[in-house]
Amino acid sequence: MTSPFTDFELMRDLQQDGGKIVLLVMDGLGGLPASLGGKTELESAHTPNLDGLAVSGSLGLSVPIRPGIEPGSGPAHLSLFGYDPVRYMIGRGVLEALGIGFPLQASDVAARGNFASVDGDGLITDRRAGRISTEECIRLTTMLREASAGLFGDCEVFVEPVQEHRFVFVLRGEGLGGSLTDTDPLAVGKRPLPVRDESGSDEGARTAEMVNRWAAHARGVLADEPRANSLNLRGLAQDPGLPLFPDIFGMRAGAIAVYPMYRGVASLVGMEAIRFEGERPQHEIDALASAWDEYDFFFIHVKKTDSYGEDGDFDAKVHEIEAVDAEIPRILELGPGALIVTGDHSTPAVLRSHSWHPVPTLLWSPHAMPDAARGFGERDCASGQLGLCHATTLIPQAMAHAGRLKRFGA
Amino acid sequence: MTSPFTDFELMRDLQQDGGKIVLLVMDGLGGLPASLGGKTELESAHTPNLDGLAVSGSLGLSVPIRPGIEPGSGPAHLSLFGYDPVRYMIGRGVLEALGIGFPLQASDVAARGNFASVDGDGLITDRRAGRISTEECIRLTTMLREASAGLFGDCEVFVEPVQEHRFVFVLRGEGLGGSLTDTDPLAVGKRPLPVRDESGSDEGARTAEMVNRWAAHARGVLADEPRANSLNLRGLAQDPGLPLFPDIFGMRAGAIAVYPMYRGVASLVGMEAIRFEGERPQHEIDALASAWDEYDFFFIHVKKTDSYGEDGDFDAKVHEIEAVDAEIPRILELGPGALIVTGDHSTPAVLRSHSWHPVPTLLWSPHAMPDAARGFGERDCASGQLGLCHATTLIPQAMAHAGRLKRFGA
Repeated sequence: MTSPFTDFELMRDLQQDGGKIVLLVMDGLGGLPASLGGKTELESAHTPNLDGLAVSGSLGLSVPIRPGIEPGSGPAHLSLFGYDPVRYMIGRGVLEALGIGFPLQASDVAARGNFASVDGDGLITDRRAGRISTEECIRLTTMLREASAGLFGDCEVFVEPVQEHRFVFVLRGEGLGGSLTDTDPLAVGKRPLPVRDESGSDEGARTAEMVNRWAAHARGVLADEPRANSLNLRGLAQDPGLPLFPDIFGMRAGAIAVYPMYRGVASLVGMEAIRFEGERPQHEIDALASAWDEYDFFFIHVKKTDSYGEDGDFDAKVHEIEAVDAEIPRILELGPGALIVTGDHSTPAVLRSHSWHPVPTLLWSPHAMPDAARGFGERDCASGQLGLCHATTLIPQAMAHAGRLKRFGA
Repeated sequence: MTSPFTDFELMRDLQQDGGKIVLLVMDGLGGLPASLGGKTELESAHTPNLDGLAVSGSLGLSVPIRPGIEPGSGPAHLSLFGYDPVRYMIGRGVLEALGIGFPLQASDVAARGNFASVDGDGLITDRRAGRISTEECIRLTTMLREASAGLFGDCEVFVEPVQEHRFVFVLRGEGLGGSLTDTDPLAVGKRPLPVRDESGSDEGARTAEMVNRWAAHARGVLADEPRANSLNLRGLAQDPGLPLFPDIFGMRAGAIAVYPMYRGVASLVGMEAIRFEGERPQHEIDALASAWDEYDFFFIHVKKTDSYGEDGDFDAKVHEIEAVDAEIPRILELGPGALIVTGDHSTPAVLRSHSWHPVPTLLWSPHAMPDAARGFGERDCASGQLGLCHATTLIPQAMAHAGRLKRFGA
């Protein structure tokens, strides 16, 4: 195998103008056969357009994190964008805030919140407050938001519902920071922990103190609730300030995604969200066509392949892949210099979960070396030109095919 | 995916005596089909001998620099010799001097020179002096060489013609060095820049001052020339002082190449150039046979596969591959412990240029694991035992096959 990660300095040195690049991500694309001897979701799908690209393009299997590591969505996308996700981490709180479309600012401190149940001694009896309904979550977060107004003179508090017992907590103001621990003791029969700062900075000490004050205040407000009479905060984090994609690779980048989480991760690396109406792949390709002249690079995210995988719905995942296949000719008509079709990770319907399996990947370009493949599927990808490659190497390879990289050395 | 680069300490620890190794490099070997559904140059060539080695040996695709990066010849060869070319850089001036066979010494500072045209205000009007003829270049460099004699008491100046407007400048003496900028402003309408030293060393300051004095003097000498009335210097550099191949790998190494550039790069890592008469592959194999007892490792370089690729001459490249194939039995008769057949990079005739595509690679040895391949070609290589590997891993793998590496650990 080849060098696993992208060298940003090399990319900054070698970048030049060239053709446009499209990165089409079917979330959770990789799969497994429903039974031994059977086909995967991608192999089962009727995909004449993708098969055509596979015959004239190059295939491979991409590893999002490390071999054997099951990716979360945030790091898996960072990797596709060229960032080694083990080196460049996004805090859990930031991902959670991006996931609900919260307009996070660079200095905000965000956390994932969980409502919890405690007994008369303050010991946790249920870390998820009996999985209260999302309606209850909305009522409680509204109550907490109102009770937090003006709590800190110079800092603002946001409390936003997510689902069931989950919410997002955001602290906004000047001079926040630090490396902050969780309040969740990860066991019943224990008290919530105070937040500690491990950075040793003034910002950290101040922020930990404010978060602890807010948590105490909020637990007081919740004290008479029958189930959600306490809460925990996890993954307190700020925007990590990642190096910016347009700078590293020399491409203005636009992101087309239905779900806010994916627009959010793209925005963290400096891509601009392209707004559009509708939720289907065809609407995303409409958006691509409309914005074609404005960007050099397009990230398109299709969510439902992953959702159906997590539901264990093999056939629905197959049909969603087919719906994407039907849009491929419209992408090609725009004349991209290179097109990558891949997933951020595998979500085999038989596992009902993200998995660690490497991800089928297709790189098409007029200058691609055609593989011996007969179609786009996991097993054809296993013997393709791209080999078993780290996902971070896909952007440089697409740039080469689109003429966007100068020669290295004489 | 395996560790991408060769660990020199490990090689020094594990090296032992064993069989001889031949690294046969067909420059620019990798190709592309002339049309969709067609074959590449290597796949088109009638190569019964190489196909036989492919059936009994192991295949793979090697990446010279990084995935997607189009290699220059210097770094591509360093990589085949086991050196990560991003870590071990050879300056442009050194490569240019090696390319004309200039007997560069370790402390020499070499630059690529370009004759240029300037107007009455000293502003550049043509960075290539109207691409003067090579005869003109010879006349001008002779003039400059004579005018530079004795310019510096303790340092010698060499000015050697290359081709058209290009020449090589070499400064030889004690105490030279530094990290020196180019004089070429890379645009017309501007003045040539003074050379600056970015190392902050005494050697650097002194060398920059001498180079600037020489450039001013030379421009004075050229002042009345109709076109080449000025010049620029680029890529001022010294021999990078690379760790030596015979020491790292424990092999006396001989280089067989028609073009001086490739003997030069080999000499930078401590290989000895083997002199011979003739320019064809058969003459190179004559040289191999003659020197067989004197070395443990042989690098053989075939240039014309690349030249024909750059000319866009698909058929001539095919025929040159066939000419090499015809010599394979003579190599095998010598009884090597391992034979690598590969390229330094791809040069598809359809692109008329070096390219970033990974390079078809064959490793033959009596101990190789035979692949399922039917012949030596890009698509058979894509599913071979060696996988998609970094070119730096080929020497250790050949050493293993030739019995030249001890076991690691107990």
